Amino acid sequence: MTKPLFDTLAIIGPGLIGSSIMRAARAHDAVRTIVTCSRSPETRKRVAELGIADKVADSNASAVENADLVIVCTPVGICGAVAEEIAPHLKEGAIVSDVGSVKSAIVRDMSPHLPDNVHFVPAHPVAGTEHSGPDAGFAKLFDGRWCILTPPEGTDPQAVDRLAAFWALFGANVEIMTPDHHDLVLAVTSHLPHLIAYTIVGTADELETVTRSEVLKFSAGGFRDFTRIAASDPTMWRDVFLTNKDAVLEMLGRFNEDVAALTKAIRRGDGDALFKHFTRTRAIRRGVIDAGQDTPDADFGRPHGHED
Amino acid sequence: MTKPLFDTLAIIGPGLIGSSIMRAARAHDAVRTIVTCSRSPETRKRVAELGIADKVADSNASAVENADLVIVCTPVGICGAVAEEIAPHLKEGAIVSDVGSVKSAIVRDMSPHLPDNVHFVPAHPVAGTEHSGPDAGFAKLFDGRWCILTPPEGTDPQAVDRLAAFWALFGANVEIMTPDHHDLVLAVTSHLPHLIAYTIVGTADELETVTRSEVLKFSAGGFRDFTRIAASDPTMWRDVFLTNKDAVLEMLGRFNEDVAALTKAIRRGDGDALFKHFTRTRAIRRGVIDAGQDTPDADFGRPHGHED
Repeated sequence: MTKPLFDTLAIIGPGLIGSSIMRAARAHDAVRTIVTCSRSPETRKRVAELGIADKVADSNASAVENADLVIVCTPVGICGAVAEEIAPHLKEGAIVSDVGSVKSAIVRDMSPHLPDNVHFVPAHPVAGTEHSGPDAGFAKLFDGRWCILTPPEGTDPQAVDRLAAFWALFGANVEIMTPDHHDLVLAVTSHLPHLIAYTIVGTADELETVTRSEVLKFSAGGFRDFTRIAASDPTMWRDVFLTNKDAVLEMLGRFNEDVAALTKAIRRGDGDALFKHFTRTRAIRRGVIDAGQDTPDADFGRPHGHED
Repeated sequence: MTKPLFDTLAIIGPGLIGSSIMRAARAHDAVRTIVTCSRSPETRKRVAELGIADKVADSNASAVENADLVIVCTPVGICGAVAEEIAPHLKEGAIVSDVGSVKSAIVRDMSPHLPDNVHFVPAHPVAGTEHSGPDAGFAKLFDGRWCILTPPEGTDPQAVDRLAAFWALFGANVEIMTPDHHDLVLAVTSHLPHLIAYTIVGTADELETVTRSEVLKFSAGGFRDFTRIAASDPTMWRDVFLTNKDAVLEMLGRFNEDVAALTKAIRRGDGDALFKHFTRTRAIRRGVIDAGQDTPDADFGRPHGHED
């Protein structure tokens, strides 16, 4: 495979993910030219200072004009509006993609606007951190992570292959599935965990019997891990829950049943049921580590100064 | 303060916490002699190999015979039986403590067995990892963490001060509260998060529509953080939920109300309510970091190779 894979890459929305793609594209010589645009003048200024794009355009329309690959990295809720805005300016034969955490709604919202002479290949790199904005990005974000492509039926296989090659260059493992199945898988591996973390952190903050100061001081017993997830970008997550409503509600229903079962075991003092459940979940942790999706070091490898 | 603080330290149950105390005590010259005992012959053998105790006793009774400080580090459920077993062999004036994650049940189960000529000062170092056993311990585990003492009414203040000085030597911040308040605080900062993590990991493992392999592969979107907590020691956590039932059920009730409220917001498409909630929880993350209870690095500082 000859590099660069694309001549010009346009990133609409240079936040955590968008700026990481730009950094990775440059680190791997994946493209010749990187153009980006943000709605916010402050972000445009900051991206120019960071020097991670060759050009910071004044409008989404001008950003995509010469682009062979356009990746929309905005919150899911405005992807449809962005597609409408850029559609008349897209280059013939360009690949248009995104990085949204939901896929059915993306296909529903973006597809109708896009002209027939471009290839639409929705994508979701399953990677991120709790930080937001162009400064939070880094080139290795996708290394060893999965990137799921959900091409609508009838998509040109060559366009899918080219986008897969682009993500593979960053160290990502590429998987292809339908938008609906993607939304179900992510509802359980990502959306439900976020909703639960957002909930529990809110619960802890509203108690009359335990002060916020106590919650923060004694958070090392488990709570602090939830606060990391519950620190993720509010706009992004609002849009995720609004656009993957059905799958999230389905998973929430199952989760509620399981909470009820464990609550019953606690209420009845059924130690055997608890022990059995906790032993099973411990084994799943080993599966995550064996799958290369987390570090086996204690506490995620948090620094502890293991000098002894 | 002259070191060592105690002549002989006895650790009953050299697991993650017990072995970390022994390592920290040695690293800080906190005691002259360290004696330990485990019910399991394999653990006794392993602790002897590790060389983290001066003596590995054959019975709990002989381990405590000459000890000035006895710390019971077994699962909460057997602390009462251990207290009964060691009571006749305790040295006059000895301080007896523990490290259990619940405190009212510890006072209820241990106090009745202990003779009047020893000082009982229950303690809970709020620190740990998802790993278990003597190999998992390390001397820095308590550094910068909190250790909560819950002396029953009438406890000799000098005994409390001596135990506080012992924990402070390891870098722990010492706080004193009643057993009941401790159990309420920990129910929200530790027990509820663990129960929820155990639940959600189980939920994800029982779906028909999403395979276990998919759950593991795409776990970096949030799920993997829950698996770490849900990998904690099953025996310890069974005992926590059985012995702090009331406070856990109280927090579960509040959590369920909050899940219901967020579910309703999703069902109705109330983006403003979601955004407001998610913005508030993001601020709490900053509180945890400001309180020194977590690293501000993205992803808990998981290795990513930020070379750019």
